[in-house]
Amino acid sequence: MSESVTRRGLLGGAAGVAAAASLPGDAEAAKKRSHRKSSKARPRRADVVVVGAGLAGLAAAEKVAAAGRSVVVLEARDRVGGRTLNRDIGGGEVVEIGGQWIGPTQDVIAGWAKELGVETFKTYNEGNYIYHRGGRRTPYTANTPVLGAIPPDPGAAEAGAALAQINEMAREVPVDAPWTAARAEEWDSQTAYTWIREHTASDGGRFLTDLGVSLVYAAEARDVSFLQVLLNVAAAGNETTPGTFERLINTAGGAQESRFVGVAQRVSLEAAKRLGRRIVLRSPVRRIVQSASQVRVESDRATVIARRCIVTGPPAVTARIDFQPLLPTLRAQLLQRMPQGSAIKCHAIYDRPFWREEGLAGQAVGDRGPCRVTFDNSPPDGSPGVLLGFVEGTFARSFSALSEAQRRDAVLQNFVDFYGEQARRPRAYFETNWGEEEWTRGCFVGFCPPGVLLDYGREMRAPFGRVHWAGADIATIWNAYMDGAVRSGRRAAAEALAG
Amino acid sequence: MSESVTRRGLLGGAAGVAAAASLPGDAEAAKKRSHRKSSKARPRRADVVVVGAGLAGLAAAEKVAAAGRSVVVLEARDRVGGRTLNRDIGGGEVVEIGGQWIGPTQDVIAGWAKELGVETFKTYNEGNYIYHRGGRRTPYTANTPVLGAIPPDPGAAEAGAALAQINEMAREVPVDAPWTAARAEEWDSQTAYTWIREHTASDGGRFLTDLGVSLVYAAEARDVSFLQVLLNVAAAGNETTPGTFERLINTAGGAQESRFVGVAQRVSLEAAKRLGRRIVLRSPVRRIVQSASQVRVESDRATVIARRCIVTGPPAVTARIDFQPLLPTLRAQLLQRMPQGSAIKCHAIYDRPFWREEGLAGQAVGDRGPCRVTFDNSPPDGSPGVLLGFVEGTFARSFSALSEAQRRDAVLQNFVDFYGEQARRPRAYFETNWGEEEWTRGCFVGFCPPGVLLDYGREMRAPFGRVHWAGADIATIWNAYMDGAVRSGRRAAAEALAG
Repeated sequence: MSESVTRRGLLGGAAGVAAAASLPGDAEAAKKRSHRKSSKARPRRADVVVVGAGLAGLAAAEKVAAAGRSVVVLEARDRVGGRTLNRDIGGGEVVEIGGQWIGPTQDVIAGWAKELGVETFKTYNEGNYIYHRGGRRTPYTANTPVLGAIPPDPGAAEAGAALAQINEMAREVPVDAPWTAARAEEWDSQTAYTWIREHTASDGGRFLTDLGVSLVYAAEARDVSFLQVLLNVAAAGNETTPGTFERLINTAGGAQESRFVGVAQRVSLEAAKRLGRRIVLRSPVRRIVQSASQVRVESDRATVIARRCIVTGPPAVTARIDFQPLLPTLRAQLLQRMPQGSAIKCHAIYDRPFWREEGLAGQAVGDRGPCRVTFDNSPPDGSPGVLLGFVEGTFARSFSALSEAQRRDAVLQNFVDFYGEQARRPRAYFETNWGEEEWTRGCFVGFCPPGVLLDYGREMRAPFGRVHWAGADIATIWNAYMDGAVRSGRRAAAEALAG
Repeated sequence: MSESVTRRGLLGGAAGVAAAASLPGDAEAAKKRSHRKSSKARPRRADVVVVGAGLAGLAAAEKVAAAGRSVVVLEARDRVGGRTLNRDIGGGEVVEIGGQWIGPTQDVIAGWAKELGVETFKTYNEGNYIYHRGGRRTPYTANTPVLGAIPPDPGAAEAGAALAQINEMAREVPVDAPWTAARAEEWDSQTAYTWIREHTASDGGRFLTDLGVSLVYAAEARDVSFLQVLLNVAAAGNETTPGTFERLINTAGGAQESRFVGVAQRVSLEAAKRLGRRIVLRSPVRRIVQSASQVRVESDRATVIARRCIVTGPPAVTARIDFQPLLPTLRAQLLQRMPQGSAIKCHAIYDRPFWREEGLAGQAVGDRGPCRVTFDNSPPDGSPGVLLGFVEGTFARSFSALSEAQRRDAVLQNFVDFYGEQARRPRAYFETNWGEEEWTRGCFVGFCPPGVLLDYGREMRAPFGRVHWAGADIATIWNAYMDGAVRSGRRAAAEALAG
């Protein structure tokens, strides 16, 4: 994340304490400031204190406030929105450098956005897609009936059959208790890679099925428990519509179908406006101390004493908080076991979306890497033209060994492979590596390697005394998505209000 | 870990700050004390600062001191020894409630212990073992030529064949770069469970092979990458003797062959005596700040400015330290990806080792759980009689749902299954759950689920500026063992001295 982004105070004022503390001299000063404030200022009191002002935290806080209870939200960054974030690209336009899409059955985020006055528009999806494999570029139609878009690969039918099997199995997986599925032990004892290798034979079938999995997590199929995959497929629906793999990976009819006008962070920004001074920015939570009657949350700029606490955010980030009394062993070990995915969003800005003129949707799948998938991420009016490429999983992990120029060249070469020479010279190019962000440390979410859901899944949403848990990472319906984050925040708020 | 243990200041004086801070009122006071000390006391200066006074940290510090350089060791606990720890059982006797054994090819810990005046003695290994499966108890001989001890199970031959295959494959795995093995991708893309299921067919073969794996990690075969297993087998030897699975799991000729007189923590205690006031106890490190010329390590009771820093300890514990500048993305994500195993040691103390009188070695393997393996852990003279049972992996994870009485009853029932009714009424019984320990959070070590060695392995020992890394978890030879810890500490010290 570039300095200009993290230091931009979207709601607050000066640069954040954490950002300013990157030089030794500054650090000492910042530390003294922060310690003075946290340990000596009079604690604030509230019914509920929320850790994190991402979608889960803001949704939780809103629900608490709506119930007439007092709430304080402590946020480490100098902004709200968590893993959603805007970036200004000039001319009054912004693009999403974090989470961005909304699709069918994501009713809760849809309803909330509407209520907050944030409209949606369809992801650009006109014309052909590009399939680039083994050095060969093939345009193909995006509008086939079953999978939505079937790449022109001899293995596509096999991949389709594998996904259909996955859909079937996912129907046996309860989204709130995947470890209770009859075959949970079998599924959670293997990686998604293993299952795919056993149920596909062709290179193309394996490539496409692997890719489908890796796009969901920004991790490799070998990193993820097969039960986690079935959970996310099961979770890609709502209370009445069963989830399907297609709904995870498709644009039309899937989780990439629509975008937010003013982009996704606006949902958080609008929610934050309503919460106003209840939100404290630039104030990382360091310690959570519980007694029989209350919970005290100590952060760099404020200490809050409350009846209940809701902790949101990636499990691996929560693991840094000093809990007193200590977290129960199972929860502490769960936090060791949900690593963040590895996602880098690469944006290239062009005067116009030239690919559209050639009948292309701006969506591509390629095997060369580092960028295996692209989208047309232009503003609603198509000006300027914006290509978004994802560098994910193993490609993201080796990306940092390259120089800035090498990285840019490699990604733009992918864009040239897909869309021709015009793609080589964007008027601007930038990358967003969420692994560099101190308070996220990877995107999209924390996922479960094999064995974790089985032995630790029960712990995921179990309150710890007066502390409740939320976040996309531990959501049930639409686990790992914005919709799941909002649902989880509201669920945790309901727990806290009932407590 | 019981209060009496963690609060006992073995080298230091009063109860530790962290331990004392378990009540809200105390916490506030402790925090003020600690902040005052760390932020206002004059920083100490040293050539090298070491984080953690376990075997790796002490070995590193000794090497630095031996080179005539100044060194300070900052330790979170009120004692040295890390994952090795004594417990007094009365009558001047102690037992090991942490790491305890030493075996052939563990030359470095052996040499160091000898130099420190700590003698070893053979683990009691006379007479028959017990195999308890499907409710049936069978004594068997511990002295067969190949595997050492082959349980009387129809699947034993199959398990033996599987282990032989594993030994073969392990010879292709370089202990310092397992990700470079020709078949690394295949091996790191699957769990050990998957490999075992594909290479064994019988219940007994699977049970025994699974158990062999789970005993090494205190985790289930499904939790662990198969490449990690091959790495540990390869690492179970020295520079001239290739590792074997047998050397990991056997008593005679294996890693459980001998114990330390005065028990394993004595190595650390003796090393600490030599280091004297260079060690600061009860001082958790909170922040490590680097500049171009130095590194400042801030802990609760001391701030140290040094030229180089060596960080030891479990990756999941290191993840809690605030690094400025931030850790590189790959290292930060590696720390999210090496969860600690789940080991609980259960000791029962009897007036005498009555099983010996019946020709039994005190070693058993059972399938009922929670305790699947036992050892005779009596002092060298056999008085009192001590049975040690391991509750590991999935059994350890569900153990905490039981009451104290239920846990004791369940473990003693295992002991009765193995050694008869006399085992039901020990004169003392206690458990050591390393998952409850704030500065360890699980034993034996941090291991790699699938995909981690492949994409993050290179990062494991790569210095971060002036910060070097050590610990059993990231050792090469005897990775995950005390010998590996000492080797890794010396390697890191050599790096720091050369830097």
